[in-house]
Amino acid sequence: VSTIRISASDSEPTGYDVIIESDALKTLPSVLARVAPAHRYALLTDSNVAAHWGEAVLGTLAAAGLAAEQISFEAGERNKTRDTWATLTDRMLELGLGRDSCVIALGGGVVGDLAGFVAATYMRGVPVVQVPTSLLAMIDASVGGKTGVDAPSGKNLVGAFYPPRAVLADPLTLRTLPQLELIGGLAEAIKHGAIADAAYFDWIDESADALLAGDQELLAALVHGSVFIKAGFVAVDLHENGARAALNFGHTIGHALERATDYELHHGHAVAIGMVLEARAAELREIARQGTADRLRQVLRRVGLPTILPARISPDDVIRAATTDKKARAGQTRYALISQIGAVARGAAGEWTWQLPPELIRQVLEEDHDAYTSPL
Amino acid sequence: VSTIRISASDSEPTGYDVIIESDALKTLPSVLARVAPAHRYALLTDSNVAAHWGEAVLGTLAAAGLAAEQISFEAGERNKTRDTWATLTDRMLELGLGRDSCVIALGGGVVGDLAGFVAATYMRGVPVVQVPTSLLAMIDASVGGKTGVDAPSGKNLVGAFYPPRAVLADPLTLRTLPQLELIGGLAEAIKHGAIADAAYFDWIDESADALLAGDQELLAALVHGSVFIKAGFVAVDLHENGARAALNFGHTIGHALERATDYELHHGHAVAIGMVLEARAAELREIARQGTADRLRQVLRRVGLPTILPARISPDDVIRAATTDKKARAGQTRYALISQIGAVARGAAGEWTWQLPPELIRQVLEEDHDAYTSPL
Repeated sequence: VSTIRISASDSEPTGYDVIIESDALKTLPSVLARVAPAHRYALLTDSNVAAHWGEAVLGTLAAAGLAAEQISFEAGERNKTRDTWATLTDRMLELGLGRDSCVIALGGGVVGDLAGFVAATYMRGVPVVQVPTSLLAMIDASVGGKTGVDAPSGKNLVGAFYPPRAVLADPLTLRTLPQLELIGGLAEAIKHGAIADAAYFDWIDESADALLAGDQELLAALVHGSVFIKAGFVAVDLHENGARAALNFGHTIGHALERATDYELHHGHAVAIGMVLEARAAELREIARQGTADRLRQVLRRVGLPTILPARISPDDVIRAATTDKKARAGQTRYALISQIGAVARGAAGEWTWQLPPELIRQVLEEDHDAYTSPL
Repeated sequence: VSTIRISASDSEPTGYDVIIESDALKTLPSVLARVAPAHRYALLTDSNVAAHWGEAVLGTLAAAGLAAEQISFEAGERNKTRDTWATLTDRMLELGLGRDSCVIALGGGVVGDLAGFVAATYMRGVPVVQVPTSLLAMIDASVGGKTGVDAPSGKNLVGAFYPPRAVLADPLTLRTLPQLELIGGLAEAIKHGAIADAAYFDWIDESADALLAGDQELLAALVHGSVFIKAGFVAVDLHENGARAALNFGHTIGHALERATDYELHHGHAVAIGMVLEARAAELREIARQGTADRLRQVLRRVGLPTILPARISPDDVIRAATTDKKARAGQTRYALISQIGAVARGAAGEWTWQLPPELIRQVLEEDHDAYTSPL
C-alpha cells in the first residue's frame, strides 16, 4: 500500500491521505473507522458503478458492522446537475441521515464531484470519503477538493472546495472501466510528466502496454506518481492563484475543443490534442525547446490518444471557444506552457501562465502536423 | 463606529469585522474596497428590502465607481429554497459575473442565508459581504458563517459554513423593519444577556422603550453587545461541538413550538416562550436558581414578547416536535440551560447541554404560569 499525504492548506485546515493499493476496497471499513467514524454512511454512486461494485462495497461495510445505505443516480455527465444533487440530498433526508453521517463517493469524476457537493452542503457539511473508480478521478479529482455540478450555462459553475477525509484508490476497479476512459486518464498522467517530471513521462512511455493491459502494480505506481505531482502543485496553491495553473497545460485549447464540439469530444482526447498544440505554440514562440511537441505526440500516440485537430472541427470555432473560456481574465485567454518535457515555462516575472495571440493559435491549429513530426 | 473582530477559527482561515454604525451603508464602498475588491458586485436582496434600500445602495456604489447589479427575489421564508438559490445563481451567470465578482447580501436572515449560500457555491465560492437589515440578522446571523436554504423536509438542511469578508450593520435600516421583527430580534438579544451577561440583560430591560422607539445610539450598542457575546461563544467552537450550544438556550422548545405550529408562530415569540419554559424546567430540576424564569418573563414582557404557551398549541404536539428535532442525538432531545440570569448551566462533566425527561417538559408546558410569577 502506498499513501500520499495531501497537506493542509489555506482552505483545508487538516490534510488527508490518498491511499493507493490494489484491492484496497476491502480496507474501506478500517479507513472509515480511522478518518470518518459515523453513525451511518451514505454510499453515493452511479448506475454503472453500482452494478459493478455496489454489492461488494455494501457487503464489506455490512461485514464490518457499519450501517450504510446505497443511493445511486443514472450514470452520465448530463446528470451532474443541481437536480440530481437535490434528489440525492432529499433521499438522504428521507432516510433520516443526520449530521453524524458520512458520505462515501464511489465512482468516477461525476460521482466524486456530485457526491462531494452533496456532502459539502448536507446540513452544512458532513464528512466525505472519496473512492474513485476511474483513472481520471484517481489522479486528478482526488487532489484539490473540488466538488460541484454543471449549470445550463456551463460546467462546474456551481460547487465548493470541500476536501475529503481520505481518498481510497483501488486500481482493481479500473478493470471495469471502459478502455476509452483508461486512455483518457493516461492523458492527464502524461500531462503530469510533461509539466513536472521527465523521468515519469518516459516511464509512462515504456510502461504503456502493461498499463493498458491493467497491470495492477504499474497502475498503482501510475496513480502514486500522478497524485504526488498534482499534490505538489496544489499544496502551495489551493485557489488557483499561481502554481496550480500549471495543471492547466493542454487544457485551454482542450476545453475549447470540448466546447467547440459541444462536449462530444472525449476530455482525454481534447487534452491530448491541446497539449500538442499548446506545446507547438510554445515552440514557435521559442518558449519551449524544439521537439517538445513531437515527443508529446509520440507518447500520446503510444497509449492510443489523438494528437491532431479532428477534421470536423474548424480553427475558427476553437479560437472563439478559447476566448470565451471562464478562465479568460478580462477577455484575455491565458495558457499554461512547458519549456521542455518535465518543466513548466515561467514568464519573465514568474507568471505561471502566458498570453498568446489568436494568430499564433490559428497557426498551430492550421499547421500541417506531419511537417514537424518525425515518424513514430 | 464600533467594530468587533470575529476571530479566525477552524473553518475560517481569516477572521472578519462586524462594523456597526448608524448610517454605515454610506461607507459600504470603502469597506468593499478594503475587504472585497472585485471586478463586479452582485447586490442580492429581497423585494421588501429592494423597495426600501435598493436604490440608495446602488446609488452609493455607483457614486464610488463600483459596478453592481441588483438581483432580487420575492421576500418570504417560503422562498428560501434551492429553486431561488438556482435562479439567483443563473441570473449572475447570465450577467457574466466571473470568479472575480463579490456578492453583497442586503437584507434580513433569509437574504443573508440564501445570498451567502449563492456566494459559497458560485464558481466554488466568491466573497460575500453581509449587510443585515433586520435586528435578528445583525445580532445572530452575522456571526458564525452559517448559510443555506430550506428543504421540503426541514429548515436549513442544505447549506455551508461560509464566513463573510465583513458584516456591515446599519441600525438606520431598522427604521423600515416591521415592529414585530424588531421585537423578535430583541428575544435573541435577551437570550444573549441570559446566557452570558446579567448587566447587559438588565440594560436591555432599562432601555426597552428607547430601543423600541428606534434610538440609533442604543440600537448600535445593542447590536454591539449581542455580537460581542455571540462571537465569544462561536470563536472557540465554530462547529457546534461545545460552547456554541449555549446559544440554543430557549431554542429546543422554541423550535418545537415553531414546528408544532408549522412555523406560524414567529421565531422570536417561540424563543421567548422557549426560554421561559426551559428556565422553568431548569428551576424544577434545581439546575437554575429560583426566580430565573420569572425574571426572564419580566423583561420579555416589557419588550412585548409572549411568555406562555399559546392556548391553541397542545403540550403533546410540542413534545412530539421536540423529540424529532434535527439536533436530537440518538433520539435524545438536549437542552442548553442557564443556572441564573447571565450564566450557562454546565453539566457535571462540563457538558454544555442537558437531557431532560419528557415528563418534566410536559410539566412545564402544562403548568399554570401565574403560579410561579410575581406581578410585573
